Amino acid sequence: MNHVPVAIIGAGPAGLTLSHLLHQHGVESIVFESRTRQQVEETVRAGILEQGTLNLMRDTGVGERMEREADIDEGIDISINGQPTRIPLTELTGHHVAIWPQHEYLKDFIAKRLEDGGTILFSTTVAEVDGHLGEKPTLTYTTEGGVPETISTDYVIAADGSSSPYRKIITEGTGIRARHEYPYAWFGILVEAPKTQKELIYATHPEGFALISTRSETIQRYYLQCDPDDTVDMWSDERIWEQLHLRADSDEIKVTEGRIFDKAVLRFRSAVTEPMQQGRLFLAGDAAHTVPPTGAKGLNLAVADVSVLAPGLVRALKRKDTGLLDAYSSLAVPRIWKAQHFSYWMSSMLHAVPGEDHFATQRRFAELRSVLESEAGQRYLAEQYVGKDLPKFEV
Amino acid sequence: MNHVPVAIIGAGPAGLTLSHLLHQHGVESIVFESRTRQQVEETVRAGILEQGTLNLMRDTGVGERMEREADIDEGIDISINGQPTRIPLTELTGHHVAIWPQHEYLKDFIAKRLEDGGTILFSTTVAEVDGHLGEKPTLTYTTEGGVPETISTDYVIAADGSSSPYRKIITEGTGIRARHEYPYAWFGILVEAPKTQKELIYATHPEGFALISTRSETIQRYYLQCDPDDTVDMWSDERIWEQLHLRADSDEIKVTEGRIFDKAVLRFRSAVTEPMQQGRLFLAGDAAHTVPPTGAKGLNLAVADVSVLAPGLVRALKRKDTGLLDAYSSLAVPRIWKAQHFSYWMSSMLHAVPGEDHFATQRRFAELRSVLESEAGQRYLAEQYVGKDLPKFEV
Ligand SMILES: Cc1cc2nc3c(=O)[nH]c(=O)nc-3n(C[C@H](O)[C@H](O)[C@H](O)COP(=O)(O)OP(=O)(O)OC[C@H]3O[C@@H](n4cnc5c(N)ncnc54)[C@H](O)[C@@H]3O)c2cc1C
Ligand SMILES: Cc1cc2nc3c(=O)[nH]c(=O)nc-3n(C[C@H](O)[C@H](O)[C@H](O)COP(=O)(O)OP(=O)(O)OC[C@H]3O[C@@H](n4cnc5c(N)ncnc54)[C@H](O)[C@@H]3O)c2cc1C
Repeated sequence: MNHVPVAIIGAGPAGLTLSHLLHQHGVESIVFESRTRQQVEETVRAGILEQGTLNLMRDTGVGERMEREADIDEGIDISINGQPTRIPLTELTGHHVAIWPQHEYLKDFIAKRLEDGGTILFSTTVAEVDGHLGEKPTLTYTTEGGVPETISTDYVIAADGSSSPYRKIITEGTGIRARHEYPYAWFGILVEAPKTQKELIYATHPEGFALISTRSETIQRYYLQCDPDDTVDMWSDERIWEQLHLRADSDEIKVTEGRIFDKAVLRFRSAVTEPMQQGRLFLAGDAAHTVPPTGAKGLNLAVADVSVLAPGLVRALKRKDTGLLDAYSSLAVPRIWKAQHFSYWMSSMLHAVPGEDHFATQRRFAELRSVLESEAGQRYLAEQYVGKDLPKFEV
Repeated sequence: MNHVPVAIIGAGPAGLTLSHLLHQHGVESIVFESRTRQQVEETVRAGILEQGTLNLMRDTGVGERMEREADIDEGIDISINGQPTRIPLTELTGHHVAIWPQHEYLKDFIAKRLEDGGTILFSTTVAEVDGHLGEKPTLTYTTEGGVPETISTDYVIAADGSSSPYRKIITEGTGIRARHEYPYAWFGILVEAPKTQKELIYATHPEGFALISTRSETIQRYYLQCDPDDTVDMWSDERIWEQLHLRADSDEIKVTEGRIFDKAVLRFRSAVTEPMQQGRLFLAGDAAHTVPPTGAKGLNLAVADVSVLAPGLVRALKRKDTGLLDAYSSLAVPRIWKAQHFSYWMSSMLHAVPGEDHFATQRRFAELRSVLESEAGQRYLAEQYVGKDLPKFEV
């Protein structure tokens, strides 16, 4: 039976970043990915990278294309009923974020892994994990040709996204899965249009929230608050444009229009799994936790997880010191809860809960105004938006 | 029939401060108060004065005793499960608050009004307000002796506290009364004991919230989160001390004990009335709005209201210019909503909602930690705690 020190399920941000970081310290891994390379490189999902994620890309030699092509954002607008206030992120925190779509991030890491001689098995689904409570777990996987194979490993990392069946091994035992459902969702569209403006607009309005975001010079990403049970056919192009203008236009700026080529409903869910380890099985990224999209923390949290997990695995494999690895969950979880708080806070402040009463609406607006009128309030928000530095450990 | 330019119902913070400010600009008023002077001067209620309220006392000659005797607080502690973090209010904002019990505040203003020749009719209940939609409203009141009398006035100010029947004149018409009920209350005690520490401790704990506050060197004011339906007999001294120690003690500080001489349950309610005017009838203080006690904004908001109302009345009476007076409600209301937000925020962050799930608890603690770990977060809280400057208008 073949053996690999670290077996990683999933070539998303968590899995690929982990494989790359391990390689930097001379630890070999295999990444198993159900989908084709093309599918992985074309699925549009997250888009905002925190300063820590950007620094990791730069510091580990994956930042070159991002540095050249990504939009750097030094501020965001928060608009209340058509009145925008700019939060100058960089002035307030010394940091910026970048608009670098998740699939571009994944392209960079896939290219780098392959260039470094790494192994990513696309179109290969992991079907079973065995023996993770012992010394030598095994993975059974089915390759493109449909042939089942088994490999032995020292550590299994489930980085297989939010429906991870491997998470259930932990939550059906002594683990906890804390959840929260929100009474709203986002209707997301991709549009062929020039940018509305360089920086993002988070707009709140009695009819609901809207986010004016971007993916490139020619492709824009717009979101409208909708009902979680809405379906794509309930949102005609006409209704979309009417609502985007109503919620996000201001005296200076009108939302740009163009051909809509993608429509989807994004559910709002929060979930945290604790602990993120059982024996030699570890969870990372969306497999362990989900955040609603308002905080733009999903990809960045995945990167934060593996910034603890990678040095932990390196120490365990190269120095037989499992101290950091054993502390993985307790080191990762506080940041996850803070990201949950930030996403929940941004969501609650900006979204009208369907049927909310006068008190709730007025209090929400008073909170937004309290934040926006105070330099400290703006900075408190900006610090969380650009994100804390990633955890750093010597290996 | 006698006539007075301004008739004020209620000798609470709103009514007495207004009467004093009017006198400073040469406008005469009468204050009607149901209770005896002794009752007014002995009822223990609010205790924390914002910087703006303190400045008003100093600037208008009522601050002398407060200046000499009140505790100045330059910080507060927020304690999570027995781990306190100090928020250095003064370092962060340049301002402080003072512990000056409401009844001491009232003593100062009563003494000053009487010294200045003002009229406060104690043991006198206003039974009816008439004609406030016309030019010359009248008030019918019953004096100590039980004799009903009528007086005519230019303006009627209902500063008669949270059960004001005069508010209903507005809310039963076109006005709005926005409300919020909280699923918890405070069990408040007065104790003969030395101070636990000079500065207040806001303590949160899985069993609930506790506030370690003070009234003087020898009298302390402690609060415990309780159920809104709890009655005084459900809280034995033994249970009180056990819960106070459990929730608020830390390694360095133990809550001081002594003879408990007062026990009461304080309901948590938010309410805002809009508008605060109808014709020549105006609402001020608790008659218009109620805040839960966590933010300590009740007395201070009453003072903020009359800081707009007093110059409005002076301009109207002395210069026949009603512009500011007509704008009273729209000028006062934004501050009221911000105080509602602050009180709601402090309450939600520090109190466990009965039966709250793991997600809610952990998110709450993550929010507290996010605030406490950030200088900006601490300052955002501190700014709201010490309060904004009071509105100032030329007369
Ligand atoms: C539709 C959508 C839109 C989003 N939009 C935003 C946004 O606007 N902003 C934001 O910040 N975040 C957004 N997110 C969240 C963000 O994309 C995720 O947080 C991020 O992808 C998490 O990375 P991950 O590596 O943990 O998981 P994933 O990216 O989900 O990667 C998991 C990978 O594992 C593979 N896999 C699963 N099971 C197996 C198996 N058994 N064997 C082999 N491979 C397997 C999957 O094919 C997948 O490629 C969005 C998510 C979704 C779903
Ligand atoms: C039990 C309790 C505890 C509190 N604790 C705190 C605290 O810890 N911190 C905090 O910040 N706030 C606290 N508050 C809130 C704070 O005390 C109030 O916000 C503040 O008193 C409001 O001042 P006011 O002048 O508007 O009303 P009040 O102080 O209520 O004054 C109204 C006055 O009008 C009189 N009156 C009523 N009707 C008539 C009538 N028809 N004719 C004549 N007179 C009449 C009443 O007797 C009363 O004296 C507390 C309130 C209560 C009730």
